[in-house]
Amino acid sequence: MYEYKAPLRDFEFTYFELMEYEDHLKSLPKYKDLTPETWKAILEEYAKLVEGEIVPLFQNGDQGCKWEEGVVTTPTGFREAYQRYAEAGWQSMAYDEELGGMGLPESLYINTMEMRGVNWAWTSMIGFGKAASPILMDNATPEIRDMFLPKIVTGEWVATMCLTEPHCGTDLGMLRTKAEPAADGTYRLTGTKIFITAGEHDFTDNIVHFVLARIEGAPGGTSGISMFAVPKFNVENGEVADRNGVVCGSIESKMGLKGSATCVMNFDDAKAYLLGEPNKGLQAMFAMMNSARIGTGLQGVCHAELGYQQAAHYARERLQSRSLTGPKNPDGPADPIIVHPDVRRMLLTQKAFAEGGRMFVAYCGKLVDRVNASDDPEVVANAQAKLAFLTPIAKAFLSEAGVESASLAIQCFGGHGYIKEWGVEQNFRDSRIATLYEGTTGIQALDLLGRKVVAANRAFMDAFVADVEKLCEENQDYPLTQRLSAVVHRWQELSEIIGGKSTKNPDEIGAASFDYIMFSGYAVIAYYWARAALVAEQKIAEGTSEKPFYDAKIKTATFYFDRILARTEGHATAMLSGADNLMGMEDDQFLLQF
Amino acid sequence: MYEYKAPLRDFEFTYFELMEYEDHLKSLPKYKDLTPETWKAILEEYAKLVEGEIVPLFQNGDQGCKWEEGVVTTPTGFREAYQRYAEAGWQSMAYDEELGGMGLPESLYINTMEMRGVNWAWTSMIGFGKAASPILMDNATPEIRDMFLPKIVTGEWVATMCLTEPHCGTDLGMLRTKAEPAADGTYRLTGTKIFITAGEHDFTDNIVHFVLARIEGAPGGTSGISMFAVPKFNVENGEVADRNGVVCGSIESKMGLKGSATCVMNFDDAKAYLLGEPNKGLQAMFAMMNSARIGTGLQGVCHAELGYQQAAHYARERLQSRSLTGPKNPDGPADPIIVHPDVRRMLLTQKAFAEGGRMFVAYCGKLVDRVNASDDPEVVANAQAKLAFLTPIAKAFLSEAGVESASLAIQCFGGHGYIKEWGVEQNFRDSRIATLYEGTTGIQALDLLGRKVVAANRAFMDAFVADVEKLCEENQDYPLTQRLSAVVHRWQELSEIIGGKSTKNPDEIGAASFDYIMFSGYAVIAYYWARAALVAEQKIAEGTSEKPFYDAKIKTATFYFDRILARTEGHATAMLSGADNLMGMEDDQFLLQF
Repeated sequence: MYEYKAPLRDFEFTYFELMEYEDHLKSLPKYKDLTPETWKAILEEYAKLVEGEIVPLFQNGDQGCKWEEGVVTTPTGFREAYQRYAEAGWQSMAYDEELGGMGLPESLYINTMEMRGVNWAWTSMIGFGKAASPILMDNATPEIRDMFLPKIVTGEWVATMCLTEPHCGTDLGMLRTKAEPAADGTYRLTGTKIFITAGEHDFTDNIVHFVLARIEGAPGGTSGISMFAVPKFNVENGEVADRNGVVCGSIESKMGLKGSATCVMNFDDAKAYLLGEPNKGLQAMFAMMNSARIGTGLQGVCHAELGYQQAAHYARERLQSRSLTGPKNPDGPADPIIVHPDVRRMLLTQKAFAEGGRMFVAYCGKLVDRVNASDDPEVVANAQAKLAFLTPIAKAFLSEAGVESASLAIQCFGGHGYIKEWGVEQNFRDSRIATLYEGTTGIQALDLLGRKVVAANRAFMDAFVADVEKLCEENQDYPLTQRLSAVVHRWQELSEIIGGKSTKNPDEIGAASFDYIMFSGYAVIAYYWARAALVAEQKIAEGTSEKPFYDAKIKTATFYFDRILARTEGHATAMLSGADNLMGMEDDQFLLQF
Repeated sequence: MYEYKAPLRDFEFTYFELMEYEDHLKSLPKYKDLTPETWKAILEEYAKLVEGEIVPLFQNGDQGCKWEEGVVTTPTGFREAYQRYAEAGWQSMAYDEELGGMGLPESLYINTMEMRGVNWAWTSMIGFGKAASPILMDNATPEIRDMFLPKIVTGEWVATMCLTEPHCGTDLGMLRTKAEPAADGTYRLTGTKIFITAGEHDFTDNIVHFVLARIEGAPGGTSGISMFAVPKFNVENGEVADRNGVVCGSIESKMGLKGSATCVMNFDDAKAYLLGEPNKGLQAMFAMMNSARIGTGLQGVCHAELGYQQAAHYARERLQSRSLTGPKNPDGPADPIIVHPDVRRMLLTQKAFAEGGRMFVAYCGKLVDRVNASDDPEVVANAQAKLAFLTPIAKAFLSEAGVESASLAIQCFGGHGYIKEWGVEQNFRDSRIATLYEGTTGIQALDLLGRKVVAANRAFMDAFVADVEKLCEENQDYPLTQRLSAVVHRWQELSEIIGGKSTKNPDEIGAASFDYIMFSGYAVIAYYWARAALVAEQKIAEGTSEKPFYDAKIKTATFYFDRILARTEGHATAMLSGADNLMGMEDDQFLLQF
C-alpha cells in the first residue's frame, strides 16, 4: 500500500473556503471563539496520529477478530491504538465542557472522523458512544446518566447499538427481546441480538449496550418497544463490578470489515436500565440512527479517498503501453498508465466522489451544528428540515459511491488490484457493508421519497432547493450553475410526478425510490461541485499562488457535470416507467427457469 | 445456500426456441445428425453431475488452495470431482471424433460450461486445454501435437496459458522470458510468469503450459514473441518422465476465486517446444484469447444466475415489513420481501442479465460453430465478422453485468448477504476478477471501439446490425422492436460521431470507449430480449400450456427496455462530452489534496 496522507489542504478548502465555516462558527454562541487556526491545528495534530498509528493498521484489520468462549480479541495493534487515542482525549472531543469534553462542534468531530475512518474497521469499534450519548443526556434519569456518560465521554468505556434480531432487521416491530421489571426498579433483559458492531472486544474494561426490547405486556409492533442501557459489567459507585448477563455467543465471518467484531449477543436475565419512557424506544433510537447514518455516508467518502490515493499513485508509476497520441515517457519502456483516457475517467470519478462526498458531509456537519447550538429557532428549524431531507441521501448515495469508487480503484490496478498486497481489494470488501447496514439503500430510498418528500409535500426538499436556486440565480451566466439549475428543476418535476402517481398506487413510491435517491445524490453533489468551481474561479481571478489546486477543482467539476451527472437521465426514465413493470410478475414467475 | 438447479427449461428456450439451434445444427454437415433430443439428454446428464457433485463444492472453494514447497493442494473435493468428470469423458466433449473426442459442437460445450461455471473456481482449473488446443492442431508439428493433444483431449492432463509477467500484463511487448535454442531442436525457457491460473495443482499427473517467450536475438516489442509448450513433467513415449524446469514459486492471496490457484511460475532452463513459427506467438495467442474471452463473459452469466437463484429464493421466504398496498401474507408476522417493488427491481435486473447474457452467449456459440464447421465461406466470413465485433462486448459487458448482479444478490439479503453463510458474498468476490483478467474492461473497450469499429470502418458492426435491422423491419408494429430500432440507430450515429472525432484526436477513442462498450452491451442484450419477447408472444398466441413461463419472458423484456436500457442515455451523453474533460488535468493535479 501507498501511505495514506490526510487531505488537509482539501479540508481547508472544503470547510473554510467553500462552506464558510469561519462565519458559521461565529454565528453559534457556543463555538464563536473557535478560530480557523485552532480548527486546522487540531486537524494537523489528529492527522499525525491517524497517519502514524491508525491507518497503518488498516491491513491488520483483515486478520479479523478472534472469538474464544465469549472473549473477542481484535487485530494486532488495534487495542493499543485505541488506548493511545483515548488517553490523548480524542474520544471526548465533541462533548460539552461541563460533561468533561473539549466542547468542539460535531462538524469538527465529523471532519476528524474522515481521517480515522480510512481504517473503518477500527473506527467502527469506538463510535457508537458518541451517537448514543444524546439518549443518556435527553432521556435517562440523572442517576443512570451519571453511571454511564462520564466513562463514555472519556473513552474509558465504549457503547453499542443493539437493534437487530435474527428474524428482524428493517422491521423492528417484530422484535422479541423481553424486559421484565425487577424489584429494584431496573429490568431483566432476555433475548438474542445479532449484527452487533463491537458487541464484545478488548478495547475497554466495560461496554454499554443500548438495547431495544419489549417490556412484558407492552403492545405488539413498533409502539411497544423501549430503550435500555445494559452494561457488560455491572457498575457500583462508578466502578466496574460483577459481570452482567450478556455474553457474545459468536462473531460473524464476513466479506470484509473483518477487524470490526460483528457479534451475536445473548442477553440472559441481564440487568437493564430503562432510558426514557416505556414504549418510546424507537424515537430515542432514531436520534442515534440519524447521526449513524451520516456517519455511514462518511464511510463511503473514506473508502473513496483511500482507494483514490492508492489508484492515483499507482497510475503515475505503473508503466504499460503507450499513449495513443505518442509516447509521454519516451525514455522508459512504456508510459505511465495515467496517460490513458479511460484510466483518467476512473480516477476522476473517484476524485469527484471523494471530494464531492466530503463537501456533502461538511454541509451536513454545518446543519448538525446549527441544530445543536443555534439560538435562533428559525435557523434550527431550517437546518432540521434540510437534515431530514439530506440524511437518507447522504447515507445511501455516499455509501453507493464509496463502493463504486473502491471498485474503480481495483480496476486501475488491473489484475494486481485483485490480490491482497495493495489493500485496494480489502478497501472494496470493507466498503460493501455500507449500503447494507444502518438501513439498506432501499430503506433509505423509501424514507426519502415516501416520508421526506411525498408525505411532507416536499417541504424539506424545498428548504434545501432554496439554497440551490439562490446560487443559480446569483450566477446565471456560469455554465455549471445553468446546468445545475436544469437538473434541479427536473428533480422537482420528478418529485411532483411521482408524488401524484403515488396517490393512486402506493407502490409507485417503492418502484421509483431507488432511482429517485440516486438522482437526488447526483443532483446534491452537483450543487457542491458548482459551488466549488465558483470558489476556484474566484481564487484564480484574485491571482492565487495555488492555481493548479483550484484549476483541478474546476476541471473535476466539469468532468462531474459532463460525465457523472449524465447518469441522472437514465434514472429519470427508469423512475417514470412506473410500478407495473415490477409488480406485474407473479411471485412464481421469478423461478421458472429449471 | 439454496441448492443450485441447472436452468434446463431456459436452456431449451434459449437454444432451441429462440436461437433456432435445430436449424443451425442441420446447416452444418459435421453436426447435422445432432438432434435437439440428444442435446437435451446430454444437458440433463451433465446437470445431474453438476448439481450433485460440482456446485455443492462451491463454498469449499473459499477454503483456498494451499501451497507448500511448490506443491499446490486444491480445496476439499475439487480433485475427486475432476477425476470423476474426466473419467466420464466430459473433457473430450467438443473435440472431433478423430482426436478421440465426442465430436460435439463448441456451442454445446459452452452451454454445459454455464452449469459447471457456477463453481467458477473449479471450472477455471480445467478449461485452458480446450482453449489452447487449436494452437496444437494448427501450429505444432505432428510430433509435438501427438505428445500433448491426446492426453489433453481425455483430460488426463490439463493446460495453462502463461502470458503475464510482473512488469507486463496488457503490454505483452515488454515481456522478458527468454528462450534459448537447444541442440535437440527444442528450447530452454527462463523467466517468471505471474497470475497463471491452474499453474500448479493436484488434479492431474501432468500440466502443459502454453508460454509466450522471446527467442534470443528476436526483435523487441510484440513482433519478437513466440509460443511454446512446456510440460511440467517431460514426456517420453507418451508417458510422464522426469520433472521439467518449471516450478510454482507461490500462489496469490486473492479477493475471491480462492479455489482457483493463481500461480507465480518460475521457468528455469525448462525444456520447451516451439509451436508454429518463431516470432508469431501473439497471433497464436489471440486465437486462444478469443475463446477465453467469450468464456469470461460466460463467467458473468454464471455469477448472475447463481446470485439470482439465491436471491429469488430468499426474497420469497424472508418475512420483513408489509407491502405498501396492504398485507400479502396476513396470517404471518410480515410479508415476504418479494412484495416490495425495490426488491423486485433488483431481482428483475439479475434475471434480465442472467437470461440476457445466456442469449448473448448462445448467439456467440452459433457463430463459433459456423466458423468451425460451416462449408460456406460466406457464412464463415459473416460469422467471423460478428464474432470479432461481439467478443469484446461479451467479455466486458457480461463480466460487468455479472458483478452488478452478484452485488444485487447481496443487497436482496440485506446484512445477511455480507456474511459467509449464504455464499452470495463469495459469489460477488469471485465475480469481481472477471472484469480484470483476459483483458480489463478498458482494454476490451479500446479493442471494440478502436480496432473493431473505427479502424474497420464499422464493417464488423454492420454485419451484426444487419440482423437487428432485419428483426425490426419484420416487426415494425411491436413496441419493443420499435424501441430497439431507435437505440440501434443511436448506436450507429454515436459510432460515426466518435469515429469522426478520433481522426483529429486519437484520445477521443479512449475517452469514449468505456461508455461506448457499455452502450453496446445494453443494445446487444436489447436485441435478444426483443427476440425473446416476440417468441413468447407467438407461443402464447399459439395457446401454450406454459403461459407463466412465456409471460415472464415478456415482462422481463419490458422491464429491461423500461429500466435497464435507459442507462444508455447517460452513456451517450458521457461519450459525446469529449476527451478534454479527461486529458485537461495535468498529472500532478491528481494529487494536490494533502
